[in-house]
Amino acid sequence: MNIQKYLELNERDVVTCCPEDSVQKIASMLGGKNACALPVCDTEGRMIGIVSERDVVRTLGEKGGDTLELCARDLMTTSVTTCSPEDSMNRVRQIMYSKGFRNVPVLDGDTILGVIGSRDALKTRLEEKELEVNVLKDIVITTRGN
Amino acid sequence: MNIQKYLELNERDVVTCCPEDSVQKIASMLGGKNACALPVCDTEGRMIGIVSERDVVRTLGEKGGDTLELCARDLMTTSVTTCSPEDSMNRVRQIMYSKGFRNVPVLDGDTILGVIGSRDALKTRLEEKELEVNVLKDIVITTRGN
Repeated sequence: MNIQKYLELNERDVVTCCPEDSVQKIASMLGGKNACALPVCDTEGRMIGIVSERDVVRTLGEKGGDTLELCARDLMTTSVTTCSPEDSMNRVRQIMYSKGFRNVPVLDGDTILGVIGSRDALKTRLEEKELEVNVLKDIVITTRGN
Repeated sequence: MNIQKYLELNERDVVTCCPEDSVQKIASMLGGKNACALPVCDTEGRMIGIVSERDVVRTLGEKGGDTLELCARDLMTTSVTTCSPEDSMNRVRQIMYSKGFRNVPVLDGDTILGVIGSRDALKTRLEEKELEVNVLKDIVITTRGN
């Protein structure tokens, strides 16, 4: 399945944050939207990084109360690997495995269409394999029946 | 695959926390151990709840700086569905889907053997289906060859 199709089938709000958003605001957006990661965009809407649930928890563990003085810019990962809507989910899954990323933003030019999480990639792969099993079972039954 | 076997193949430290552990300590343990959730145990080692990365982020979003005054007992979920080492991974996956849990602790009596996350369940199911596809493909090739 390609990413465009996946996003159409699994409609979700595209939630982004600003580099100056506080850690509390990021946490609130992550918690409220049930998202694992937020793209961080500049005033022109271009993505300059990504900040995840994990980044928030790790920083809180390291810095305690000082975390509340920080903002998205301080926590975000700036070297982000993205994908395009034409990419296949398999390619995105390979990016995740090879680079150890859990979240891959989908960009159409400068426009953010969504974020693919590792759970999305695993679920899609599983559905494909379940379908393949069913098709193969049918072939076995038909072939043996002849 | 049963849970016992899965835990043997995917050896991980069993990390738990105390009800009085601060949110910063919980965040530090979650971040350091790359765990998504920690069972919370009383002084006798009995599990009385579970606290997740998501609980920490959600509380931080709602309460901001006051979160740092809280401890595991304040954040934990107390109605925890557990599984036993004899359970199958499929059963655990069904528990996750039907109840919306992402983390299911494995208990042998009162002893915590680990926590199964939704990614563990998905990965295992995918591996099983990939194996099934390969077996079925072999059967198709053999049957058609005769």
